[in-house]
Amino acid sequence: MGFDRNDPRSVRLAARSGEFAGVTAGLAPGYVQGNVCILPREFAEDFRTYCERNPKPCPLIGVSGPGDPHLPDLGKDLDIRSDVPRYRVFRDGVLKGEVTDIRDLWTADLVAFVIGCSFSFEEALIEAGIPLRYVAEGKNVAMYLTNIETEPAGPFRGPMAVSMRPLNAADAIRAIQITAKYPRAHGAPVHIGRPDLIGIEDLERPFAGDRIEVKPDDLPVFWACGITPQAAVLRARPPLCITHAPGHMLVTDMKNSAWALP
Amino acid sequence: MGFDRNDPRSVRLAARSGEFAGVTAGLAPGYVQGNVCILPREFAEDFRTYCERNPKPCPLIGVSGPGDPHLPDLGKDLDIRSDVPRYRVFRDGVLKGEVTDIRDLWTADLVAFVIGCSFSFEEALIEAGIPLRYVAEGKNVAMYLTNIETEPAGPFRGPMAVSMRPLNAADAIRAIQITAKYPRAHGAPVHIGRPDLIGIEDLERPFAGDRIEVKPDDLPVFWACGITPQAAVLRARPPLCITHAPGHMLVTDMKNSAWALP
Repeated sequence: MGFDRNDPRSVRLAARSGEFAGVTAGLAPGYVQGNVCILPREFAEDFRTYCERNPKPCPLIGVSGPGDPHLPDLGKDLDIRSDVPRYRVFRDGVLKGEVTDIRDLWTADLVAFVIGCSFSFEEALIEAGIPLRYVAEGKNVAMYLTNIETEPAGPFRGPMAVSMRPLNAADAIRAIQITAKYPRAHGAPVHIGRPDLIGIEDLERPFAGDRIEVKPDDLPVFWACGITPQAAVLRARPPLCITHAPGHMLVTDMKNSAWALP
Repeated sequence: MGFDRNDPRSVRLAARSGEFAGVTAGLAPGYVQGNVCILPREFAEDFRTYCERNPKPCPLIGVSGPGDPHLPDLGKDLDIRSDVPRYRVFRDGVLKGEVTDIRDLWTADLVAFVIGCSFSFEEALIEAGIPLRYVAEGKNVAMYLTNIETEPAGPFRGPMAVSMRPLNAADAIRAIQITAKYPRAHGAPVHIGRPDLIGIEDLERPFAGDRIEVKPDDLPVFWACGITPQAAVLRARPPLCITHAPGHMLVTDMKNSAWALP
């Protein structure tokens, strides 16, 4: 392809022009990628409150003004109507289809939310030599619904979703310390060890993503997951909701390292 | 008693005068307490190297000059010959007795080492609302020998000892983050979860300290322990070795908070 895969703005411009419509894992290494959720203005205040009350699954990293498709704090000339490689469109909480552009759907009534994503801390884990088996196996991370209820706000409520990474004890201890430095990317884990204690009956059957082997000496380590707010939104059944398609994230100009705690 | 239990120097002076010869848990809250190991000069360099190679079990916080009983960096007019409430005297690696003063044993040939202790991070855990069951039950922490070998130096070698605190998963995750900020008090845990993976056959039978219940939903969390260097020293069989008696620590003027990472 003709665009610079290491440059975040170049990735966005390729998404904007239609040249690129793929998953963003591994693109623009070192830069923050975000989950996207676009909602009608009447839902925006409650959704913002929901995110603020649940910062581990929903770390807000950007909110647009109503009708304003730009988020200059996240990227130079970023346009949320075109710069995500692939979108999902939901009406009344039901998926209606996937598109690569939402210029025709955008109105002065819409507000865009961008939520941090675990790619930021995974980069730090890999740099620290902590193996991520699902990455090595070319899979998607395993995600589960838990019995941990999020703090509701207006129509938004529901269980916390988590992603699970199997690690040996020494790596788990290091991973907890490393990910704690990334509060805008879900931060430290919410659980370690026994899945049944957070309402997960069977690790072999993830709610989303791919099944991953937990070896006999591994501990399953659970982080709050960015699909939590999506599930809460769909449950609230807004007339229109537009999200990124799974894995097709918004690539920002923010450095992961700049957002890490010391 | 007539001394100020909140003031570290007052505790040392009470130990010096013979007024106090008890355990130091809970005394001078907020101040660093240390393990003490006094060795003949010919062993000092190897022991220092041993500590430096094994900073998790043996975080060195002070070393005296040969024959110099003062450690001014650790406390105003601190005198290592009298300021520890109770000492143990070993000859050729064999315990010969406990004394409350070593002025008569001190020679120009001796070097004193002070090693950080988990009291520093336990205070931070308690402040964070993380329950320490053995403290609540008035017991000593449970300690075990592991199959993790320390890095040898000269005659000093042997297995790492660990202390174990049972915690639920959420508290364990927080405890890992908090104790990581105290590298001079053993730092983050070395293991979590399965005792058998580090060579501990039976949690019910600690090597030292008291047995503590691990409830069904708890994870056992293991930190490197300050009895590691004592075991290594006794194995090296120096002609003379003087340590603090268990629980009878050296109280310093250093604040725990001043030594915590940000």
